[in-house]
Amino acid sequence: MKQQTFELLILGSSSASPTSNRNPSAQLLNIAERYFLIDCGEATQIQLRKYKAKLQAINHILISHLHGDHFFGLPGLLSTMSLLGRKQALTIYCPPDLKLIIDTINTASQTVLNFEIVWQFTTDTSLNLLFEDAKVQVYSFPLKHRIYCTGFLFKEKPLPRNIDKYKLEKLNISVAEILKLKNGLDVINEDGKLIKNKEVTLNPLPERSYAYCSDTIFYKKIATFIKDVDLLYHESTFLEDKLDRAKKTFHSTAKQAAEIAKLSNATKLVLGHFSARYGNLDSFLQEAKPIFNNCELAIEGKTFSPNV
Amino acid sequence: MKQQTFELLILGSSSASPTSNRNPSAQLLNIAERYFLIDCGEATQIQLRKYKAKLQAINHILISHLHGDHFFGLPGLLSTMSLLGRKQALTIYCPPDLKLIIDTINTASQTVLNFEIVWQFTTDTSLNLLFEDAKVQVYSFPLKHRIYCTGFLFKEKPLPRNIDKYKLEKLNISVAEILKLKNGLDVINEDGKLIKNKEVTLNPLPERSYAYCSDTIFYKKIATFIKDVDLLYHESTFLEDKLDRAKKTFHSTAKQAAEIAKLSNATKLVLGHFSARYGNLDSFLQEAKPIFNNCELAIEGKTFSPNV
Repeated sequence: MKQQTFELLILGSSSASPTSNRNPSAQLLNIAERYFLIDCGEATQIQLRKYKAKLQAINHILISHLHGDHFFGLPGLLSTMSLLGRKQALTIYCPPDLKLIIDTINTASQTVLNFEIVWQFTTDTSLNLLFEDAKVQVYSFPLKHRIYCTGFLFKEKPLPRNIDKYKLEKLNISVAEILKLKNGLDVINEDGKLIKNKEVTLNPLPERSYAYCSDTIFYKKIATFIKDVDLLYHESTFLEDKLDRAKKTFHSTAKQAAEIAKLSNATKLVLGHFSARYGNLDSFLQEAKPIFNNCELAIEGKTFSPNV
Repeated sequence: MKQQTFELLILGSSSASPTSNRNPSAQLLNIAERYFLIDCGEATQIQLRKYKAKLQAINHILISHLHGDHFFGLPGLLSTMSLLGRKQALTIYCPPDLKLIIDTINTASQTVLNFEIVWQFTTDTSLNLLFEDAKVQVYSFPLKHRIYCTGFLFKEKPLPRNIDKYKLEKLNISVAEILKLKNGLDVINEDGKLIKNKEVTLNPLPERSYAYCSDTIFYKKIATFIKDVDLLYHESTFLEDKLDRAKKTFHSTAKQAAEIAKLSNATKLVLGHFSARYGNLDSFLQEAKPIFNNCELAIEGKTFSPNV
């Protein structure tokens, strides 16, 4: 069975400031050709171009919080989308002050974008549905940082049941009835005979999920929001040698990220948001793997999918 | 005679949006170890790092106008300067609304920079002295763009006269009197004898200048502000085939930039701020050179000096 696309592209994995080879936070998530840009640090539009991403296919931008390394690339990206002729509305999910910032900039530069921005402000109450269509659900949930900050959870909607074509051929079933079968119902065929759903359909592939958790102090409650997530990105700004600094700045260590992955019963963990003080990142894996083995590093240009 | 440093580093030469190999406007000018950052398009801090520039040596940032491709890199650069421990005050020369933008961002992100920003707002009245110290003068002057926009003129102060050491050795002159000689005065030596300045000093090297003109429609009056400039950067967003578009958007063509260089009696012209529609830039030189031959392209990483 061919699965629909579910691919995460890392555009930036650095915390606070870019380094010579790491960009500030940004990720592009493609679920069934819905493109979600998650955070938008400085130079995200340059990263999107570098990795040949479809700029105008992005209809949803989600900003976790208003520290600059998570949104300083947004004004430039919006400007470029407009200059390239975008007409389609764009939804931005974010804390309310981001609208004030963008409005202030556009007023000062006398810029009128050629497309509408639909602002949808995040709230910090439990799990909150932001977006839903036929294929995907997107939720925000509270993280615990120095300023108001949310994580995001992306879930495939249950896929239709798969029809067993060999069995179907002999059963004289109309097209309308086939749709009912895909939705799990029993049907009557054109000869008036009851066809039990289970006799002619196969279970669909299980729906998959991705959770984005940046930035946050070690916060066990996250596990309740993202229970059984397939793919988890959790920030690991520091290693355990800087645990005090992690606590003080409301960030996490690689070990703590692994603990959240374990508590969440996640399948795969991706570590990111690395402090510029760390050149070689191998130590992040060494620290996380004894607690949660299926663990990788967020490296610019790398893609991940939950199919593991 | 060893000249003091006068070097311009191109950080970005693209107009409007970055391309795969061109960044938005930014230049770093070093005159006698004073570092001036001129405009600050998105990813300027990444460019500064790429070319190993001394980030914290920048004490002056000049922003020509508030179109995003000229300042979207500023919030990130300020944040990084602060995170790297900067304490020294930084002066920003700019239109007044930029302060509102930076204040709005810093309030939303609860950011307090570790250093003071001294805001000096540009005005659009003729040639206006922005900064002066023992070595350099910096002026702004009006350009003509869709929104309020200024150019910048940087001039070395007259250099001290050079002492002819061979002649001086025999003349019994105190250190204090030598300083007077360097400033062009006659002096009395320790034997009470009048020493004529011309007898023991040589003319200094002539003082040099650089003018930055971006963004502007073809505007002859510029030549009166920058008369006899040594090095001139003038925007050439378009070629003559897009003259109508240049007029409509208040930009210039390569030919028009060359005409301003000729009218100004400049020594050397650097073309930049190229529209993303042009891949190969050779045509810009082909168009400009018949009018002003000493002409080069602003390419990221390239340096220019007025010593030609």
